[in-house]
Amino acid sequence: MKSFMDRDFLLDTDVSKKLFHEYAEDMPICDYHCHLSPKEIYENKPPRDISQLWLSGDHYKWRAMRSCGVEEKYCTGDATPREKFQKFGYTLQYCIGNPLYHWAHIELQRYFGIDTPLNAKTANDIFDRANDAIAKGDFRPQSLIAKSNVKYVCTTDDPIDDLKYHKLLKDVKGFDCKVLPSFRPDRALNAHLDGFADYINALSESADMEIKSYKDVITALLKRADYFHSVGCRISDQAFDYPPYAIASDDEIEDIFSRAMSGGKITLQECDKYRTPVLLALGEKYHQLGWAMEIHIGAMRNNNTLMFNKLGADTGFDSVGDCEIAQPLSRFLDALNREDKLPKTILFNLNDKDNTVLGTMLGNFQSSDAQSKIQFGPAWWFLDTMDGMTNQMKTLGNLGVLGKFVGMETDSRSFTSYGRHEYFRRIMCSLIGRWVEDGWYAYDEDILKEIVQGICYNNAVKYFNFE
Amino acid sequence: MKSFMDRDFLLDTDVSKKLFHEYAEDMPICDYHCHLSPKEIYENKPPRDISQLWLSGDHYKWRAMRSCGVEEKYCTGDATPREKFQKFGYTLQYCIGNPLYHWAHIELQRYFGIDTPLNAKTANDIFDRANDAIAKGDFRPQSLIAKSNVKYVCTTDDPIDDLKYHKLLKDVKGFDCKVLPSFRPDRALNAHLDGFADYINALSESADMEIKSYKDVITALLKRADYFHSVGCRISDQAFDYPPYAIASDDEIEDIFSRAMSGGKITLQECDKYRTPVLLALGEKYHQLGWAMEIHIGAMRNNNTLMFNKLGADTGFDSVGDCEIAQPLSRFLDALNREDKLPKTILFNLNDKDNTVLGTMLGNFQSSDAQSKIQFGPAWWFLDTMDGMTNQMKTLGNLGVLGKFVGMETDSRSFTSYGRHEYFRRIMCSLIGRWVEDGWYAYDEDILKEIVQGICYNNAVKYFNFE
Amino acid sequence: MKSFMDRDFLLDTDVSKKLFHEYAEDMPICDYHCHLSPKEIYENKPPRDISQLWLSGDHYKWRAMRSCGVEEKYCTGDATPREKFQKFGYTLQYCIGNPLYHWAHIELQRYFGIDTPLNAKTANDIFDRANDAIAKGDFRPQSLIAKSNVKYVCTTDDPIDDLKYHKLLKDVKGFDCKVLPSFRPDRALNAHLDGFADYINALSESADMEIKSYKDVITALLKRADYFHSVGCRISDQAFDYPPYAIASDDEIEDIFSRAMSGGKITLQECDKYRTPVLLALGEKYHQLGWAMEIHIGAMRNNNTLMFNKLGADTGFDSVGDCEIAQPLSRFLDALNREDKLPKTILFNLNDKDNTVLGTMLGNFQSSDAQSKIQFGPAWWFLDTMDGMTNQMKTLGNLGVLGKFVGMETDSRSFTSYGRHEYFRRIMCSLIGRWVEDGWYAYDEDILKEIVQGICYNNAVKYFNFE
Repeated sequence: MKSFMDRDFLLDTDVSKKLFHEYAEDMPICDYHCHLSPKEIYENKPPRDISQLWLSGDHYKWRAMRSCGVEEKYCTGDATPREKFQKFGYTLQYCIGNPLYHWAHIELQRYFGIDTPLNAKTANDIFDRANDAIAKGDFRPQSLIAKSNVKYVCTTDDPIDDLKYHKLLKDVKGFDCKVLPSFRPDRALNAHLDGFADYINALSESADMEIKSYKDVITALLKRADYFHSVGCRISDQAFDYPPYAIASDDEIEDIFSRAMSGGKITLQECDKYRTPVLLALGEKYHQLGWAMEIHIGAMRNNNTLMFNKLGADTGFDSVGDCEIAQPLSRFLDALNREDKLPKTILFNLNDKDNTVLGTMLGNFQSSDAQSKIQFGPAWWFLDTMDGMTNQMKTLGNLGVLGKFVGMETDSRSFTSYGRHEYFRRIMCSLIGRWVEDGWYAYDEDILKEIVQGICYNNAVKYFNFE
Repeated sequence: MKSFMDRDFLLDTDVSKKLFHEYAEDMPICDYHCHLSPKEIYENKPPRDISQLWLSGDHYKWRAMRSCGVEEKYCTGDATPREKFQKFGYTLQYCIGNPLYHWAHIELQRYFGIDTPLNAKTANDIFDRANDAIAKGDFRPQSLIAKSNVKYVCTTDDPIDDLKYHKLLKDVKGFDCKVLPSFRPDRALNAHLDGFADYINALSESADMEIKSYKDVITALLKRADYFHSVGCRISDQAFDYPPYAIASDDEIEDIFSRAMSGGKITLQECDKYRTPVLLALGEKYHQLGWAMEIHIGAMRNNNTLMFNKLGADTGFDSVGDCEIAQPLSRFLDALNREDKLPKTILFNLNDKDNTVLGTMLGNFQSSDAQSKIQFGPAWWFLDTMDGMTNQMKTLGNLGVLGKFVGMETDSRSFTSYGRHEYFRRIMCSLIGRWVEDGWYAYDEDILKEIVQGICYNNAVKYFNFE
Repeated sequence: MKSFMDRDFLLDTDVSKKLFHEYAEDMPICDYHCHLSPKEIYENKPPRDISQLWLSGDHYKWRAMRSCGVEEKYCTGDATPREKFQKFGYTLQYCIGNPLYHWAHIELQRYFGIDTPLNAKTANDIFDRANDAIAKGDFRPQSLIAKSNVKYVCTTDDPIDDLKYHKLLKDVKGFDCKVLPSFRPDRALNAHLDGFADYINALSESADMEIKSYKDVITALLKRADYFHSVGCRISDQAFDYPPYAIASDDEIEDIFSRAMSGGKITLQECDKYRTPVLLALGEKYHQLGWAMEIHIGAMRNNNTLMFNKLGADTGFDSVGDCEIAQPLSRFLDALNREDKLPKTILFNLNDKDNTVLGTMLGNFQSSDAQSKIQFGPAWWFLDTMDGMTNQMKTLGNLGVLGKFVGMETDSRSFTSYGRHEYFRRIMCSLIGRWVEDGWYAYDEDILKEIVQGICYNNAVKYFNFE
């Protein structure tokens, strides 16, 4: 039996161990998509205890706890930090096969120096030891980021954001990590949801212009994109149940837009007709600015109305959809490409049934604009598991060019989640090492080093023109 | 080379062997979903020969034989028992990689004491040896159930069933297994199929009330649910191509219902409008009674019209559908949950492309009502294979809490199919043992024992409130 | 570390090695579906250099090169053969996990005697050595086919083809491989695409009859099928995004047909109404002629309009679709089977999410007409990878009868692609050998030999009645 999560965790061949320890382990991190708060990074406050750090905002952990029948008061409610941590420890012992189990222990080992497995029996003691480490050490956001060797953090920001903290962070002495905004215009696209008109009014103010038509929305968004660019933004992000692509006349789109603005109910099909020209205009802008366009496909959000009404969004009640995506995605990308306006694009899927669709979609639109201009994004959210990551890399290996992959991002809201890069790198080295060990890929140290370090960091930095 | 299907069959690590032999092997069985006949259990007749036991009703075996070009007379026709068995032996040798191959050999070993691999050459001899064992041993249903250490058998019963044999079985001396009914209202829901009106009339008689509207159907079904409850039923089951969810007005539903009752043709879309309120009312009832609601999604039945006309349903001509399921399933569960009326629910999929959808759907509706109140049902029917079971458990491990899984049921029509529980347990111990052996999960004997025995038996018994 | 792609490449157990080297390796090849040119086989010209042989028509390689950011002039443009080969060598080193990497090295080893791994550093030298081998050896199509031990080549031919080269090839002395046509009526079915009317006029001429109605199209196709049969055709092939099945009245179909013939725009839904009766008539004809009907499902073609306008079809801009297929496929096969007119059928999917649908669809329509009359076609195109082939065989093993599988075809346009049969056989022997090694299948040398040689060659030859 191998020791529990030791130095060679997940590394089962000599080549894997060599690749990880000699080439991957010490590479810096380019976290090109996450949900960290620039305000929190700037304010740089230490956490009160491990429950605040781990359990105050992590919907992964709440879901697991609820799945064990734990009452809501221990998740988002008013139980004490110790009680919450005990319930989490109880939960974790049943999470065999779940990445939470590995993430938690990687974080305990790396940030807290605690090697003891966390379970119902050990939770109380680990709570004390972790809090002791917090009290004695430096667990402020900037320290955790620096300690994790992170060189780039790309946050996720609304077009109306003033990016105040991104600007302030540029001048923080002794904090070398670049914290860059990303442009996420989802709220401007969701004309079918409540609050759309209010949002458009806020966008109007932010862009300092009147918005009377859907074309004004486009103009305002493009202005904001220019502003984001000036603050260092190089990436945009949009998320959809399925890729919208529906062509309609100007008149019809204006009608849909004005109904949405006056609080009328818009169907999802109508919304797609509005979204399509807005997205095409945005895609063209991203191309012009040299940005990468991220597309996250397949989340089905806020499924539990009861809990949504109590807790709001992003509290652990999202799941994976199963719409057809191949045809609309192909048509959308082609519409931009036909005019030579397709930006660098990263496609993320949340349903692994779509791996083959995305893995082959890439190849339709590659060009010499960039190395693997169209990327298959790393396994994301629910797929951010050993199986999910392995399957994503095997799919990309089988169907595309794995050696040009931009690699991992955390998609996280937590400052200790950088252990997920280590997790990813171990899995990547395990996969590649196994292929070499079995004689499936020629052993050439220069080439393997270039591929491994490329996937860890270098490919991303080059792809986003960060260096 | 490992010996063929020996004591350590499927167990490839030391931890796996320990988990299976020390903890899993001797646990009792809670077969919470099957198609055994309570009448046959009660009448307790011995089989005439192994062909009757194995080949008289098993559509898995017929499908395999037909796939080898075997003529129908050897499957469902009038060939002799020996001829049929010989054809099956011939077939089995080509079934490399098929669970039938393993099931057959587990049954030969455990029930007949025969270790010889079954193939074309050995079939004749094994036919004689097996029949000799039947002649000399006790192969009556109650003995086979007792020998298999089965404590609970939940059969599948129509709401109009009088449950006579379930009642009689309570008083059988020396037979300790509890044989409980399950409530399967499919025929009351399928307004689009032939025979609906006749069925509703039978339901009317069974519930002793007039049925003039779809609301009367609901009332009648709720009455029958109360009756089932009084006989020990704690589980309901419904099966769909896809989860129906379509909201319509009362008038429209009544119109659909009355057309169906007068023999008119109802479309599937119309049927969904009828099904939705009936299912919501049933869900509420199940919640009130503390039952678990099983939902089986994805079977596409009776594809071969020619053979359906000759042999009827359940004769080996069903396959797997590929409808979108995420959105309607989410809406159906939310409609119940919004009113705090969602019962314990077990979701089964027949298409493994839906694993990720179900594996994440669970998390939307968990609560402290039960430990893993929403369960991901074990790999079912066509997925009841090594790969299918492993993938289901990996999915649940990755996306939910495997340690709270209610585990295996046979879904079977055969009294020797309890070997499938052994098969499942070996695969489960192999998976968990491998994770521990590789240092991916901490070795803690108490915790592992609790998890393994939970998945074998304890979780189910607790979940269904059987003990 | 195992040596790179040595004698035991992919064979990781003793049983696998034995099965491959003793039983599989020397079996002849029945390439029952490919896109080789009978004209090129007949003309039998040697290639000018390895770039012509490898890079002049292979869209797999172009896609990989474009994915590495290689400019189009090195793919389909006017760069020199040496430059193109260097760019391919550069590309290949990043293709870790891609079958291209293995195919290229198998071909270098078997046809050129070159064991050096191909990468950016070695490309220049390998270019010279390969061209030297071409200059000194015999790389003409007939020699490559003979050297690869290919006994049957089934090309893919349009119904209007005169099959001149198939006829000429029958009389070529010293070339023992049978080159047979296959009947691919796709252009007669695609009434919604440009060029349909012109094609029907060409069909009219080829069949020597007037075509005034869709029924005349059927008559003309059946005449051409008879002609194809007389030249040795035993297989038809059709390719669809999804299986069309839409029943309409004669009048409606005639209206659709006449609109299409006069250059009007036909929707895909309308086209399906035209296709359905044509396909049913063809299916009946195939059944009568004893042909096998291949159905390739799931390709989404010509996604990149810009490149389609520059380079035309089959240049590397296709990908995988995700339509629902279970219901229409079931209805189409049942419509033929109901009348006892279902031919032998091979179902191919391009999206592996459909594996379970196809793997179970087979069983709906098996009969004693043939051994595994309905076949699950081998992993195809984008799925023609280690993972894709393994999953296809596991699916067939789990859900059908792997021992009756007709096995591999190349689907290729290249004369050195027969290495893909070796690749397939190694993977098949690895899978089966592992099952035996682990005690999951009884070791019986006669049976294993029959199964392995069956999947390599014998099952196909028997299935197609070639011998």
